[in-house]
Amino acid sequence: MTAARYAVVAIGNAIVDIIGRCDEAFLDRHGAAKGSMRLVDAETVQQLYSEMGPAIEISGGSAANTMVGVASFGGKAAFIGKVAGDEFGRIFRHDIGAAGVDFSTAPVNGKAPTSRSLILVTPDGERTMNTFLGISTDLDHGEVDAATVESAQIVYLEGYLFDQPQAKAAFRQAVAIAGKAGRTVALTLSDGFCVERHRDEFLDLIRGGVGILFANESEITSLYQTPSFAEAARRAAADTRLAVLTRSARGSVIIADGKTHEIPVEPVAQVVDTTGAGDLYAAGFLYGLSSIGARPQTNLGELARTRGLIP
Amino acid sequence: MTAARYAVVAIGNAIVDIIGRCDEAFLDRHGAAKGSMRLVDAETVQQLYSEMGPAIEISGGSAANTMVGVASFGGKAAFIGKVAGDEFGRIFRHDIGAAGVDFSTAPVNGKAPTSRSLILVTPDGERTMNTFLGISTDLDHGEVDAATVESAQIVYLEGYLFDQPQAKAAFRQAVAIAGKAGRTVALTLSDGFCVERHRDEFLDLIRGGVGILFANESEITSLYQTPSFAEAARRAAADTRLAVLTRSARGSVIIADGKTHEIPVEPVAQVVDTTGAGDLYAAGFLYGLSSIGARPQTNLGELARTRGLIP
Repeated sequence: MTAARYAVVAIGNAIVDIIGRCDEAFLDRHGAAKGSMRLVDAETVQQLYSEMGPAIEISGGSAANTMVGVASFGGKAAFIGKVAGDEFGRIFRHDIGAAGVDFSTAPVNGKAPTSRSLILVTPDGERTMNTFLGISTDLDHGEVDAATVESAQIVYLEGYLFDQPQAKAAFRQAVAIAGKAGRTVALTLSDGFCVERHRDEFLDLIRGGVGILFANESEITSLYQTPSFAEAARRAAADTRLAVLTRSARGSVIIADGKTHEIPVEPVAQVVDTTGAGDLYAAGFLYGLSSIGARPQTNLGELARTRGLIP
Repeated sequence: MTAARYAVVAIGNAIVDIIGRCDEAFLDRHGAAKGSMRLVDAETVQQLYSEMGPAIEISGGSAANTMVGVASFGGKAAFIGKVAGDEFGRIFRHDIGAAGVDFSTAPVNGKAPTSRSLILVTPDGERTMNTFLGISTDLDHGEVDAATVESAQIVYLEGYLFDQPQAKAAFRQAVAIAGKAGRTVALTLSDGFCVERHRDEFLDLIRGGVGILFANESEITSLYQTPSFAEAARRAAADTRLAVLTRSARGSVIIADGKTHEIPVEPVAQVVDTTGAGDLYAAGFLYGLSSIGARPQTNLGELARTRGLIP
């Protein structure tokens, strides 16, 4: 096995977020389940956008956020995902590159616009996502660069991408390449509804080569179709070497080779916006796992040091 | 004189801001004077963007920000300015409309992109703007809707727009329409360098019908070519009925019909970002002047109440 060039390489949706605030009644009126991610068509995204308040645009995408987090810790990261050659595509490419993440997937012109997610944040800080998948869904196995995947200690796969048939093939290919190169494959389940849509295929993928599984409580209980978190956690531990399970305000539970570690939360005075919280949790975990002892130069690294998480 | 439909109507550049952070060395390296606004060409904006860090996109434009502020206080506001039929144009149109400001200037396709400003915020919170003027510079007198201008208590003109020859004609036309309808014309000088470029024409405009002049210290001393703020303020008071002069941390000075009022600042613990500070100061002033006694329903209104500024 050659030396890894990257701590983590991620494959996911390349998305620009459009973030605004709304009240709970707005979500109800538009049939959006608070805290979830739902896929919407062009007409619905237009309707929602016309009714929502002023917004800001900021690069997003779950696995892309995680790679920016890894880079912010000082880890070497790359991202594989698809944008169009439009304004949002240029924004996504600029921001992820400026954050220090390698991103070389070629843009595609004239087929579909760059994917975007209307993110509505309610007064309790919870985010509800309405994603219009444009060109990012078009990622197929032809775009998974074998040399990049082979050169990563950890290959991180975003569950959201599973909503697209051709992306499933890309995932399976990445798992095969990583396995052959002796690399670790990590998967995040991304969203409870996403798990509902693809339960069996997720289970096949996990049992077939996923070494690290990230999930929150609703995702893992949905995966194993049990109301009991403890039961779901036991089953996850049987299916994968390392299960990393987040429980919002109740902290997280990590089951590694049969041993359970309960991690308490770091309390904050007020939750302002949960957008990307799980993504950056994964960033910290992946960075710690892949690069322990490295010397981060950047903000997140300093934060981790002041909290005594790294020397 | 018929009843005014709007408290304020503004004419200005329709701009989407691209806001990121940088250090002072970055500004020096790129020859940008801290705190200023400079106009850059397509090549420079591309170069700066490729070298700056991750950014967020948010609707901006000086006079447009002020109208959003007026609406946020509960005042009725409209904006006249030009966007293209592109992604940034749609963002600008959505955000200003969602903030409650009437905006009906038609988009223009295929001529130039929607204007944008790369705003670099240094650690001291000061913002430095690098503006690429696209289609917003194309505003001419054909786009100044007489009915809208006539129906505003105050017509607010953005000095930045003076960088464009055809916009000067639009301004003069707006002043003439407002004068005939018995409305008040307000002008903001916008930027010290902008004043350097158009001093004589600004003076002509002010003496020819501007009732309210907004300027900060560097703008007003540049306008009257004197190092003395007191001297510049005296001369402004001779040229206009109401001079509203801001001095950053030293508060503001208002000279109304020969009487001087010194307004202290509301101290904050830490200055994070000064982007739009002058724009929102103008919003508070214009709202107070045009709508005193109205009952704002929105956030800025609540803030003004808790501070005892309105009953």
